[in-house]
Amino acid sequence: MSSAHVIALDAMGGDRAPDIVVAGANAARIRHPGTRFRLFGSPERLKKLLRRFPRLAAVTEVVASDTVIEPDMKPSQALRRGRRSSMRMAIDDVKAGNASGVVSAGNTGALMAMAKLALRTLPGIHRPAIASTFPTQRGESVMLDLGANIDCGAENLVQFAVMGAAFARSVQGIRRPTVGLLNVGSEESKGHDEIRRAADVLRDTDLPLEFYGFIEGNDITEGTVDVVVADGFSGNIALKTAEGTASMYTGFLRATFRRSVFSKLGYWLAKPALIALRNRVDPRRYNGGMFLGVNGVAVKSHGGTDAMGYANAIGFAVDMLTQGFNERVIRDVEFLERVSGIPAGAVAR
Amino acid sequence: MSSAHVIALDAMGGDRAPDIVVAGANAARIRHPGTRFRLFGSPERLKKLLRRFPRLAAVTEVVASDTVIEPDMKPSQALRRGRRSSMRMAIDDVKAGNASGVVSAGNTGALMAMAKLALRTLPGIHRPAIASTFPTQRGESVMLDLGANIDCGAENLVQFAVMGAAFARSVQGIRRPTVGLLNVGSEESKGHDEIRRAADVLRDTDLPLEFYGFIEGNDITEGTVDVVVADGFSGNIALKTAEGTASMYTGFLRATFRRSVFSKLGYWLAKPALIALRNRVDPRRYNGGMFLGVNGVAVKSHGGTDAMGYANAIGFAVDMLTQGFNERVIRDVEFLERVSGIPAGAVAR
Repeated sequence: MSSAHVIALDAMGGDRAPDIVVAGANAARIRHPGTRFRLFGSPERLKKLLRRFPRLAAVTEVVASDTVIEPDMKPSQALRRGRRSSMRMAIDDVKAGNASGVVSAGNTGALMAMAKLALRTLPGIHRPAIASTFPTQRGESVMLDLGANIDCGAENLVQFAVMGAAFARSVQGIRRPTVGLLNVGSEESKGHDEIRRAADVLRDTDLPLEFYGFIEGNDITEGTVDVVVADGFSGNIALKTAEGTASMYTGFLRATFRRSVFSKLGYWLAKPALIALRNRVDPRRYNGGMFLGVNGVAVKSHGGTDAMGYANAIGFAVDMLTQGFNERVIRDVEFLERVSGIPAGAVAR
Repeated sequence: MSSAHVIALDAMGGDRAPDIVVAGANAARIRHPGTRFRLFGSPERLKKLLRRFPRLAAVTEVVASDTVIEPDMKPSQALRRGRRSSMRMAIDDVKAGNASGVVSAGNTGALMAMAKLALRTLPGIHRPAIASTFPTQRGESVMLDLGANIDCGAENLVQFAVMGAAFARSVQGIRRPTVGLLNVGSEESKGHDEIRRAADVLRDTDLPLEFYGFIEGNDITEGTVDVVVADGFSGNIALKTAEGTASMYTGFLRATFRRSVFSKLGYWLAKPALIALRNRVDPRRYNGGMFLGVNGVAVKSHGGTDAMGYANAIGFAVDMLTQGFNERVIRDVEFLERVSGIPAGAVAR
């Protein structure tokens, strides 16, 4: 898809920065022609890396930053001491209007705190949420919040539903996405007050989404709904539990095929099919924690990903810009406020 | 292991009752010689089934019940209308001292409500919790609460830790189990107040367990700790997410091996190894939701399991009795009360 967007990259954030950031930007450049980049970090190292990718260098500006936000830094420390960090400068670049989106593989808490402070939230949004796509038995869905908000009121959950549905419509191309609230049972009486109040609003409001009702943990990978809405505490636990279970299975499977000469031979025969399976669930395909609800596009890449994974995180940022994700959210939240009586901008709980 | 325990079985609860209940009891009888059974249900049907298993019939009494608790019945309805149900009568049998443990594959909410009402909680226990074992990369761990308590205070979480550790020591034979609190990050500052207060108590109290600290969702299947402690909301979501992810992988793998003649041949060559893998993660091995903290032993079997799975649920009940699980919990909670100042029996939050 052609794009004329400028993406600011925190070139020093992540386990293998800045190498995979530059290589990832190059892969994203090929997939999204027209995209331009602004790399924040050490000019010496970045210019040296860019020599390998002359076409990328032609559409990239390097901007010098002084420090790096460490992975174990607390958000409050990062806010105080990180003004000249590659992460903060990349975010500020969006605020200044030089770039329209930012991608970082650094400290998630610091990135969220800085993005909220520098970019602020979209009009009407109480709190931003972190969203990610994931593979299901039926295809691909999106889940939020994945950890930005430990406690969520009904108003927050409703807004997450609206934002998740806007993401599914714009970036994933689903006309009328189904939305489920993650709970401990599907009956209307299940769960705590806030989640039941959120369900009432979603059931009664004519939003551009299909409210499915409550779903349970197993529905996540079953693909029962296109958009899974959860508070940040259980959403984070669900996501990481799914990742852990997937990696246990991968590990068990690897050990299984090493058990005997026959199973090794079996592996070689089934290899093309097994590679297709690996691609289907490849975590790099789903690499990108979208900060939905901030006034600007901000995407968190996994810290340990490679260039292909990083390119996907950039791809999500480009798609959100191209598809006008934020404009849709503003429109939907305005509508929600008008018809449901939920005051936009009100502080929930 | 030899046992002289009497187990009351809700013979009519579950998708395939009473057939798999009777067949499951027979399998459990072989594994746990000396165990006796009291089957609650339709005498006609049960006596007919028992004819197939004369040795089981010799150690089994059939008791007539009038009704069955339906899977979709609310706990409150079940309490009101279920006095002559197979489930309630099996529970009451433990209360009356005719049996020392009860197993049911019926409605979980009804079973918990009835068990709490009829058996009450162990001295000092605020609220019972549901626990289950599960496979990890390192072996096998136990997790609680899996859904009995939506909101949990610090005192509840601490007691869950004590009960989970007592289970790991007695039934799983782990001398000094490691215990982790399920959270959204491992730093001490993460999570909500209640979980941080629980961590403080567990860190400062010299209990018969090794407090690991906070763990994240991926730690569950990584086997980072022997005992995973969570509130019933996130614990239920984590368990079902793990089950859903496991079943997605199983489904993908099945489809993978059907892709081509080569992958089918590969499957046949690797079959013994793949069967070993399947056994390793076989849900029937882990079938048993133990109601820890009720005054008596009560185990919930999965509604859709088969005879082997049901036999495992009975096995958990027998092991808890043989190993004196409840006596350990009483002792540990008394100790906790004495040294930590947490009043046993106090109503939390």
